[in-house]
Amino acid sequence: MTSDLRGRELTEQVVRSFAETPDPRLRQVLESLARHLHAFVNEVSPTIEEWEAGIDFLTRTGQTCTDVRQEFILFSDVLGVSMLVETINDAETPDATDSTVLGPFHMVESPARALGDDVSPQSRGETTVVRGRVVDTTGRPVPGAVIDVWQANAEGFYDVQQSGVQEVGNGRGLFRADEEGRFWFRTIIPAHYPIPTDGPVGELLVATRRHPYRPAHIHFIVDAPGYRELTTHIFVAGSEYIDSDAVFAVKDSLVKSFEPVDSAELAADFGVTAPFRLAGFDIVLHTESED
Amino acid sequence: MTSDLRGRELTEQVVRSFAETPDPRLRQVLESLARHLHAFVNEVSPTIEEWEAGIDFLTRTGQTCTDVRQEFILFSDVLGVSMLVETINDAETPDATDSTVLGPFHMVESPARALGDDVSPQSRGETTVVRGRVVDTTGRPVPGAVIDVWQANAEGFYDVQQSGVQEVGNGRGLFRADEEGRFWFRTIIPAHYPIPTDGPVGELLVATRRHPYRPAHIHFIVDAPGYRELTTHIFVAGSEYIDSDAVFAVKDSLVKSFEPVDSAELAADFGVTAPFRLAGFDIVLHTESED
Repeated sequence: MTSDLRGRELTEQVVRSFAETPDPRLRQVLESLARHLHAFVNEVSPTIEEWEAGIDFLTRTGQTCTDVRQEFILFSDVLGVSMLVETINDAETPDATDSTVLGPFHMVESPARALGDDVSPQSRGETTVVRGRVVDTTGRPVPGAVIDVWQANAEGFYDVQQSGVQEVGNGRGLFRADEEGRFWFRTIIPAHYPIPTDGPVGELLVATRRHPYRPAHIHFIVDAPGYRELTTHIFVAGSEYIDSDAVFAVKDSLVKSFEPVDSAELAADFGVTAPFRLAGFDIVLHTESED
Repeated sequence: MTSDLRGRELTEQVVRSFAETPDPRLRQVLESLARHLHAFVNEVSPTIEEWEAGIDFLTRTGQTCTDVRQEFILFSDVLGVSMLVETINDAETPDATDSTVLGPFHMVESPARALGDDVSPQSRGETTVVRGRVVDTTGRPVPGAVIDVWQANAEGFYDVQQSGVQEVGNGRGLFRADEEGRFWFRTIIPAHYPIPTDGPVGELLVATRRHPYRPAHIHFIVDAPGYRELTTHIFVAGSEYIDSDAVFAVKDSLVKSFEPVDSAELAADFGVTAPFRLAGFDIVLHTESED
């Protein structure tokens, strides 16, 4: 028997080994995984040493994960897999706000804050107000929608990356939209930042001469009973790396202008002092699918 | 833009991101990985929750690894990937002894032993002698070939799985073939055994109704200067699960009869007492490729 034939028989043998899986979805996923993984191995014909290097990379990626770090999400992110999954799921709700990747920093619960509160009380930077409205696909407000927000500071670090500098919860806030679906909060403009580079994913970026930077952004998860949860960001228009996000997550519709505002009156409305920056983000939620 | 088109553009964007990789082999592997991984994701269209379950599985697989346990090799094994890599590499040396998977238990150095020594001094079981000759592809002996052997005991456990019961090194031996390429050692017949089932890979087997058993076998790594290292097993003919190895590693050429021997004379030759079992394994090494 040729090795090629042996290889093909082996693939079929592995696929057949999943035949008794009671859950048809799990069976489908594993059969597809076996075929695609074997096709990859056949295409690159790894040496034993290369296979060992792959095992070592995956092992260290798992072991780099802690309560405040998720290296496997990072690996999925830099391979564009996270964004592909978002894109596929987004396709079901073309009339809703675009989604983008969760990223690896949604690791702690955001503190509940009142509308207008400062999300980043321990961060220095340009005062910014983000405001918007949560509506359904017919334009009707979604009162009481829950808006979970998290972001880096002006040095490009999340709270969980800077213990001793930021308390956990700085840069995060959990808001509830008002009766008209409106929300607003105070913060500072986040900086663009490198994804963590001191682990296996960082080694991969160095070896491939890829930069580790993400353009400046603020994360959102928005949800309300009867609606489909939306995971997304807004990106700061004009930020460095807006055209080469290390995790492929930028969508044009999510790039927002953070406009300089000089009006003392408008500042007073938001309880800040002029000058400040103002960004608008209106969010369209899709009704939950029946399943 | 349709989501399908968006997905395809994303895949090309990820492939292009590796364009500056200085090592052409690494570039080839990563481009192939990105395409096959994206094809898998496109085919199964995971929900966000399924993607999260995948991340969680991979993370826990990495975190289950310790100095004496390699769960990612186990995952590669039960997906037939390890065996496929062996099969591909084996194809380059069709006139040498067949290889098979390394498995996850080659984790400690085998103690040097003299020809004829007992590999399993702390194991109870049927006394067995394994003997053979290491030759090159023209049939000439390979004097001084190094033969690394490891195996489970009659309860199906390796030393590293049974601290307090077996000392590390029990079931293992590092031998040097004599001037005529011959080797022989004493041991006990290993049992078939389940691969470790208390980790993520075990969960996978339960969820897919796959049994975790490997037929009884003895591992070998054989090497000599100027020759290509051979990683293989011999399987005990008639062992349970010989037709359904959980890691797809059985090759007919590696199934060996462990013959019952009653001859007191032959027993004396090997320093054992009759009755005992005798297995023969002649090993053909291939000259090292010039690279």
